[in-house]
Amino acid sequence: MDATPVWFMRQAGRYLPEYRALRDKHSLLELCHTPDLAAHVTLQPIRRFAVDAAILFADILLPFEPLGLGLSFAAGEGPRIARPIRDAAAVRALPILEPEESLGYVLEAARLVARELPPHVPLVGFAGAPFTLASYAIEGGASKTFTRTKTFMYQTPEAWHLLLDRFADFTGRYLAAQARAGARALQLFDSWVGCLSPADYRRYVLPHSRKALSLAAAADVPVIHFGTGTGPFLEDFAGAGGDVVGIDWRIPLDAAWGRLRNGQGIQGNLDPAALLAPREVLRRQVREVLDRAGGRSGHVFNLGHGVVPETSPDAVAFVVEQVHGG
Amino acid sequence: MDATPVWFMRQAGRYLPEYRALRDKHSLLELCHTPDLAAHVTLQPIRRFAVDAAILFADILLPFEPLGLGLSFAAGEGPRIARPIRDAAAVRALPILEPEESLGYVLEAARLVARELPPHVPLVGFAGAPFTLASYAIEGGASKTFTRTKTFMYQTPEAWHLLLDRFADFTGRYLAAQARAGARALQLFDSWVGCLSPADYRRYVLPHSRKALSLAAAADVPVIHFGTGTGPFLEDFAGAGGDVVGIDWRIPLDAAWGRLRNGQGIQGNLDPAALLAPREVLRRQVREVLDRAGGRSGHVFNLGHGVVPETSPDAVAFVVEQVHGG
Repeated sequence: MDATPVWFMRQAGRYLPEYRALRDKHSLLELCHTPDLAAHVTLQPIRRFAVDAAILFADILLPFEPLGLGLSFAAGEGPRIARPIRDAAAVRALPILEPEESLGYVLEAARLVARELPPHVPLVGFAGAPFTLASYAIEGGASKTFTRTKTFMYQTPEAWHLLLDRFADFTGRYLAAQARAGARALQLFDSWVGCLSPADYRRYVLPHSRKALSLAAAADVPVIHFGTGTGPFLEDFAGAGGDVVGIDWRIPLDAAWGRLRNGQGIQGNLDPAALLAPREVLRRQVREVLDRAGGRSGHVFNLGHGVVPETSPDAVAFVVEQVHGG
Repeated sequence: MDATPVWFMRQAGRYLPEYRALRDKHSLLELCHTPDLAAHVTLQPIRRFAVDAAILFADILLPFEPLGLGLSFAAGEGPRIARPIRDAAAVRALPILEPEESLGYVLEAARLVARELPPHVPLVGFAGAPFTLASYAIEGGASKTFTRTKTFMYQTPEAWHLLLDRFADFTGRYLAAQARAGARALQLFDSWVGCLSPADYRRYVLPHSRKALSLAAAADVPVIHFGTGTGPFLEDFAGAGGDVVGIDWRIPLDAAWGRLRNGQGIQGNLDPAALLAPREVLRRQVREVLDRAGGRSGHVFNLGHGVVPETSPDAVAFVVEQVHGG
């Protein structure tokens, strides 16, 4: 295929009426826990759009349930972690998980989806990166300043590194297990790592992301390493690994690509808010991303973060057309 | 003075017990509205620390009251705007404000503080930048994704530019009025501008920041142009104006300084979370900022954003000592 491939983070989600209809009957966690439903939701955007990949419907925080941290989602709000990790003892008390046992339902959903997808549409599996998982585990939910996370990191570096090592080990094996279940690409989500200074990224996070990515690479499918706000330390972020680096809209795609390691592809990087713009603005912004990629192979078109709930499905269809029309 | 000057954004605030004692008796808005109290709060950190500047106690959203938008602060939460701006008609209906009439109480507080301060401690006045003001006015409060703001910007660009022009005009004149009232430096806060792509900053924001900064420059005192997440478009951000550019911790200070316009100084850039770290980590991080500045004149030491409430006053004192000890 000559056209640039395109898929959307959170392409299965709240902006789709057929997803909202299911959510009227089931909670987010019910959808995740039930392989038939998770597979069904994963396939919803595939039925609507000519996207070039399916992203498994799941949540990066699902491992918190078998870890005993207590996960819930309040209506209209973010995740709540009932028993956040606040000291070294809590880190040491974490059980060692086997993905097949603890998150077998996700792997089962992957198997169901892989069976249903047309051969030209690969399934992308995903998991949270060590830093982003740690930030939720420590904060107990979403955060703007990540104050507790950084305090933990600075004050108890040994416990911090143990926690990130645990998450790296689990998340790397979990990604590999998704590949064995049928995922033909994997994405490591380090959504909030951009809150760190470049020096802190290198010292406190990089080795753990490298470990997770190296465990995932063992599955021998392409791995995408995604983060937002990574511009200031992109060389280190890319150096942690991944065949493709996912960037947000805050950095011009060509500038970012020039800073990657030899041979790494790039994924991105339209601002999700651009899908709320009138067609001429959206067209211009899609065009700018494509122009900066310059038609080089190794570019996967995507947003710089997930589709926002206010998005019209028509806007998604329009972007797919624009990208494929090239 | 040979040592690097140092002050802290939000150095008068919730981390100080003497501030919390006042807040037990008065709301945030009461403190702002009462020149004696605002002046008193401004001076609290000056009594404790050997900081080299006082930052006027006020809030960037105070202009929303005379603009009729309805401003309140819910306990423990961010600002709430009762009548957010959601269409072009609302923009056109905004009154034109005279700072002396509409925010005379802030200027009176500035006069009181200027009278009380020792001569070697200048008062810094401040105001919100057009983008950051618009984002609050449109969202109706804080936001993580700025979806409404960007939708407004893309869908109604004429109304957007009119709104930002109004804010630029007011905020520039308001800053100049603070200088006339005794402020010996001014800071324009563009706290949330880092949510934009570099292309969108240039197209939708830069001309308005330039106007605000140019109106402020007429007052003939140094102007600091501060934003977070500005690394990806720092040349444009600095190009908008300011004698000093304030940066956050996400970009190494020397790399940022090298990208500024000829002669611009730099302010920053310790992560506010570093003040929650043990002394040896805090010392290392302060040292790193100072080393990157290399003792060159034109560096003002500050945090990359405001002091967080969890901070111990002792940590602030420690940073001041470290910076002055050089």
